[in-house]
Amino acid sequence: MVVRDAGAEPVRIGVVGAGRIGTSHARLLAERVPPAELVAVADPRPGAAVALAGPLGARALTDPAQLLAADDVDAVVITASTEAHADLVEAAAAAGKAVFCEKPAGLSLADVDRGIAATDRAGVPFQVGFNRRFDRGFAAARAAVDAGLVGTPQLMRSVTRDPGLANPTAVPPWTVFRLTLIHDVDTLLWLNPGAEPVSVYAVADALVAPDFKDTGLLDTAVVVIRFDNGAIATAEASFSAAYGYDVRGEVFGSAGMVTTGDAARSSLVRYDAAGRHADTVRSDVELFADAYTAELAEFCAAVREGRAPAVTGHDARRALAVALACIESVRTGLPVAPATGPTPAAPR
Amino acid sequence: MVVRDAGAEPVRIGVVGAGRIGTSHARLLAERVPPAELVAVADPRPGAAVALAGPLGARALTDPAQLLAADDVDAVVITASTEAHADLVEAAAAAGKAVFCEKPAGLSLADVDRGIAATDRAGVPFQVGFNRRFDRGFAAARAAVDAGLVGTPQLMRSVTRDPGLANPTAVPPWTVFRLTLIHDVDTLLWLNPGAEPVSVYAVADALVAPDFKDTGLLDTAVVVIRFDNGAIATAEASFSAAYGYDVRGEVFGSAGMVTTGDAARSSLVRYDAAGRHADTVRSDVELFADAYTAELAEFCAAVREGRAPAVTGHDARRALAVALACIESVRTGLPVAPATGPTPAAPR
Amino acid sequence: MVVRDAGAEPVRIGVVGAGRIGTSHARLLAERVPPAELVAVADPRPGAAVALAGPLGARALTDPAQLLAADDVDAVVITASTEAHADLVEAAAAAGKAVFCEKPAGLSLADVDRGIAATDRAGVPFQVGFNRRFDRGFAAARAAVDAGLVGTPQLMRSVTRDPGLANPTAVPPWTVFRLTLIHDVDTLLWLNPGAEPVSVYAVADALVAPDFKDTGLLDTAVVVIRFDNGAIATAEASFSAAYGYDVRGEVFGSAGMVTTGDAARSSLVRYDAAGRHADTVRSDVELFADAYTAELAEFCAAVREGRAPAVTGHDARRALAVALACIESVRTGLPVAPATGPTPAAPR
Amino acid sequence: MVVRDAGAEPVRIGVVGAGRIGTSHARLLAERVPPAELVAVADPRPGAAVALAGPLGARALTDPAQLLAADDVDAVVITASTEAHADLVEAAAAAGKAVFCEKPAGLSLADVDRGIAATDRAGVPFQVGFNRRFDRGFAAARAAVDAGLVGTPQLMRSVTRDPGLANPTAVPPWTVFRLTLIHDVDTLLWLNPGAEPVSVYAVADALVAPDFKDTGLLDTAVVVIRFDNGAIATAEASFSAAYGYDVRGEVFGSAGMVTTGDAARSSLVRYDAAGRHADTVRSDVELFADAYTAELAEFCAAVREGRAPAVTGHDARRALAVALACIESVRTGLPVAPATGPTPAAPR
Repeated sequence: MVVRDAGAEPVRIGVVGAGRIGTSHARLLAERVPPAELVAVADPRPGAAVALAGPLGARALTDPAQLLAADDVDAVVITASTEAHADLVEAAAAAGKAVFCEKPAGLSLADVDRGIAATDRAGVPFQVGFNRRFDRGFAAARAAVDAGLVGTPQLMRSVTRDPGLANPTAVPPWTVFRLTLIHDVDTLLWLNPGAEPVSVYAVADALVAPDFKDTGLLDTAVVVIRFDNGAIATAEASFSAAYGYDVRGEVFGSAGMVTTGDAARSSLVRYDAAGRHADTVRSDVELFADAYTAELAEFCAAVREGRAPAVTGHDARRALAVALACIESVRTGLPVAPATGPTPAAPR
Repeated sequence: MVVRDAGAEPVRIGVVGAGRIGTSHARLLAERVPPAELVAVADPRPGAAVALAGPLGARALTDPAQLLAADDVDAVVITASTEAHADLVEAAAAAGKAVFCEKPAGLSLADVDRGIAATDRAGVPFQVGFNRRFDRGFAAARAAVDAGLVGTPQLMRSVTRDPGLANPTAVPPWTVFRLTLIHDVDTLLWLNPGAEPVSVYAVADALVAPDFKDTGLLDTAVVVIRFDNGAIATAEASFSAAYGYDVRGEVFGSAGMVTTGDAARSSLVRYDAAGRHADTVRSDVELFADAYTAELAEFCAAVREGRAPAVTGHDARRALAVALACIESVRTGLPVAPATGPTPAAPR
Repeated sequence: MVVRDAGAEPVRIGVVGAGRIGTSHARLLAERVPPAELVAVADPRPGAAVALAGPLGARALTDPAQLLAADDVDAVVITASTEAHADLVEAAAAAGKAVFCEKPAGLSLADVDRGIAATDRAGVPFQVGFNRRFDRGFAAARAAVDAGLVGTPQLMRSVTRDPGLANPTAVPPWTVFRLTLIHDVDTLLWLNPGAEPVSVYAVADALVAPDFKDTGLLDTAVVVIRFDNGAIATAEASFSAAYGYDVRGEVFGSAGMVTTGDAARSSLVRYDAAGRHADTVRSDVELFADAYTAELAEFCAAVREGRAPAVTGHDARRALAVALACIESVRTGLPVAPATGPTPAAPR
Repeated sequence: MVVRDAGAEPVRIGVVGAGRIGTSHARLLAERVPPAELVAVADPRPGAAVALAGPLGARALTDPAQLLAADDVDAVVITASTEAHADLVEAAAAAGKAVFCEKPAGLSLADVDRGIAATDRAGVPFQVGFNRRFDRGFAAARAAVDAGLVGTPQLMRSVTRDPGLANPTAVPPWTVFRLTLIHDVDTLLWLNPGAEPVSVYAVADALVAPDFKDTGLLDTAVVVIRFDNGAIATAEASFSAAYGYDVRGEVFGSAGMVTTGDAARSSLVRYDAAGRHADTVRSDVELFADAYTAELAEFCAAVREGRAPAVTGHDARRALAVALACIESVRTGLPVAPATGPTPAAPR
């Protein structure tokens, strides 16, 4: 007796941008996300798309427009440079493709609003890459909050420490807020469901690469966010952790506390004449391998089911509004009220 | 510009046995092990193969012989009942298929020797399912031993505690040694490379399900193994851990110690009026998801490269010899020398 | 052969204030600090001094002045109510007694300056109760900083969470800064040796006991301190941790990080059907028993050796200056520069 | 108003034996155990008693008999060499002194029986130095067992690893069982209340100092103990842990598990380019400072209250019986039934 069930149709995906995170996403899509079929990779740099797409059995393209025009692409994963995000989201939506865009979805609220409006108009799912929500520990933290185990959040914390600043000259201004702390901001907003941020205070400095401070490079920052339910949150980031990639969260409330995030690479603990030791993870790709897989699986599920994904453009807008308030606070030295109001209606 | 690279040919795999571990392996092969293509699942129970194969896009068969005869099957993964292992290994090898067999590879040394001889004759890779070697923590433990960070092993420990004994009537005699502690035995042999076990002492009892002791069911056991390099190892197993699935290892030597194994489900730690809490894992499939994936990837790599896999029939034979010595020790109440000598030459 | 060595003369101590912390200090002095001899306890409340002093073999007094006038008292430990600290320090110094004063050493810089001036004039040691410096974990953190293992501090954190707010009506305004966060401030200043705080931003709210907000009770607060060496520190406090008494510290720098503080009551970890559990400490007296003992031993040593203790009035002044800047920041909603300059010369 | 309460009369103690543990006990008695008054220290080695007693304000004696004859000594703490224990216990009891004796209370059951008989006859308290029972973690383990949180014990473990073998020539034969593992044996018996050991199997080797094997020095050992309630326990010891002093316990039962013992020196965790690190404790005196203090406090309380202490000569006899069975098992290579029956009636 032989039975064959073809299974559901795959979600055919094109990846735009073959950089570090694009490489990781393309590989996970091809190898770890069963509903996904990696169809094409586009990158203007000669060789980059070929090197990534080839071994994965996908087409390599140099022009993103070609990818967006392809009939055999149902959905695009945008991992291009940050400045290009908003235009690519708009173009992909216009082409009728479902859109996954790495954070931030744009550098200004207007940019993000364009993406929201375009994907709304096209009626396609629009997911933004806040991968931490898919990490087992962070997801369990949110579940504990939802279950009332923490009570009303009162003190919150989110930390991001990158293992190193590879090339200070390549870092655009305000990256620490727009690309790094935007993760922490989203995490804090998400772990305090139903609450609105009402005030933001931020300080930032160039402590890792002080020589580049003149170029606008700030590599270390601390943020305080007050919420309308009373919760006070801190977020902090550094571009240079000697010991690896360190992401942690904490929610303290009226009924208890949850903490999440562990830099240990495995369960191995080693003891010798110098004491007790454990290896630590060195990259987001290592720390968040399962979380990246889960967020891409969620994207495929949303595409298949024709529904809004778990992380939307509105979430991206909200986090960006807080990140922009941080920048304003650093500029003025004063607390700032973030513009997290509802997304303006898209003109039709 | 469009470039396509077909990639290497997939390893076409048939799974024999659609039980708990067969289900896990089939899914991992289909969804998480890129070089693998799950082609067929065979299980004599009506419906079991269909239910597993269908959603994964594979053929469902009721007769393993059909699967072994299939031209589009390069390799088989044997997850049938333990008694059938040896015959299936032999038959699969005779059919020219590469063989992955769940542990134990047989219930007697003669059984395992048959499998070794058959796969040797056929010149096909033969891997046995000692998955713990592929766990990140255990692999790091072995790496530390190899790097000399532990020195010469002196005291070793391996623990397996299952979360519950589902059906005491279905447990064959000596399961605690042949199916459970054989994992610990392999781990201990593997973490003490180059050393030979010279003496085994074991005790076992029916503490979880005492009513079934008459049927030969032993659910709790402790083993002491002495090695020719002086190391003294203990292994222990229980079929009923209230808190979940607990596998740990420890190697203490002249230069230090490594410990591995952590029952925590994620990095989340929760605090409330009753103290500090963490959830624990509840199944091997949860604890060893990555390890199972890695062992199946290793099998595919060995098949592609036409080489012996990282865990061989000889490893299976050695671990079984120690497990059988444990059984003899329980029977006699005395220490026993295990028959871990070289595999007898296969008659041609 | 019999030999007797009388040992060094004991330091004869009187404790002023038989409240919670006075009780703890008196007992530790009598039972755990060998050089100390508890001679007297003074407390105006009928019965309080008797109940404490009696079982410890000390005199009970109702008038602190009597204690200060006693010839057999070498040194006083001031654990009276906060408002009385400054006057008591001054009076004790005037009486020629060495002075240990619980934090804060006064409610205004002028108060603390009076104490510094008086003890300077009298030439007696003056120690302030920043006990965390004597905790094994915090002391090891400072040692790691001193050894260069952290590099230049860049991001710092100190947390204090009390297990519960016994009586909201009894909490004077700004207690969260003047009595609680002053510990964290001292810790942060001490863990960043040689650096000066240049800016303070603080927010505070009544989240635990909102009904008492009108009375000025703030029970939850977050502080951001910027230092002249670039380090950015956060401190946070809550008056109501459901899980116990939680004090932690973290110093992240160019070479690595140290964290300290663990709420676990012992090394016991318990596992059951609900997962993994550990009991947590419930009071400062439990968490800091050894630290309190060590700080009192340091005081006795300083008295015996006629030298300045490890924590001085100048440290108290500096921490208070930052705490007062926090209050000013909450009042104005703006960052504030703390007045941590050198103590003004005392008029003679 | 002045009130003085003289407090209870102190327990006047003489310490016999100014070696490592005698030094520790004498200091704790003088400095950390309030009811104790250290009156005298006796040690035949010239200078040893003086060096210890002098700074503590006690008499130094060279003849233990002098100490036992002293009218101002209520109780003796015996920390002499092991061979002298039994005679000293007998002599002290005959002199009417309460007796605390370091483990083992004797090298043979007859020795221990002599001590039990003598202290019974004299009607004086007799405590033996199983300090681990007073460790916070181990005590919490026993409390959890008593509270039913573990259920019926099924698998147990106790580990002792010493940081180093200072002088192999000075180690009497079977020390690993009689002085080291006797701690683990007592712990296991105590953590399985009401159960009797029925079978002991032990292996031992000279792995740390193999050159001394001929002298009878065994430095590494593993023990398996079966109890009449089904529990199977392992104990292991090594005389040379590179990383410090490591004592751990584990009780796994039908309802859950407890683990205890942590080698970390403080709550400090350090991170650098090589990963995560913690310092480990290096001696029993460091690890068990509080436990030693608590056991001596218990002794004083028993003396004051004229009652049997928490750890008695009968406990010492039971643990020794198991340790002697271990030695017999190593000699014969076979499992041995320990002679833990009731202490024979003392002849009058």
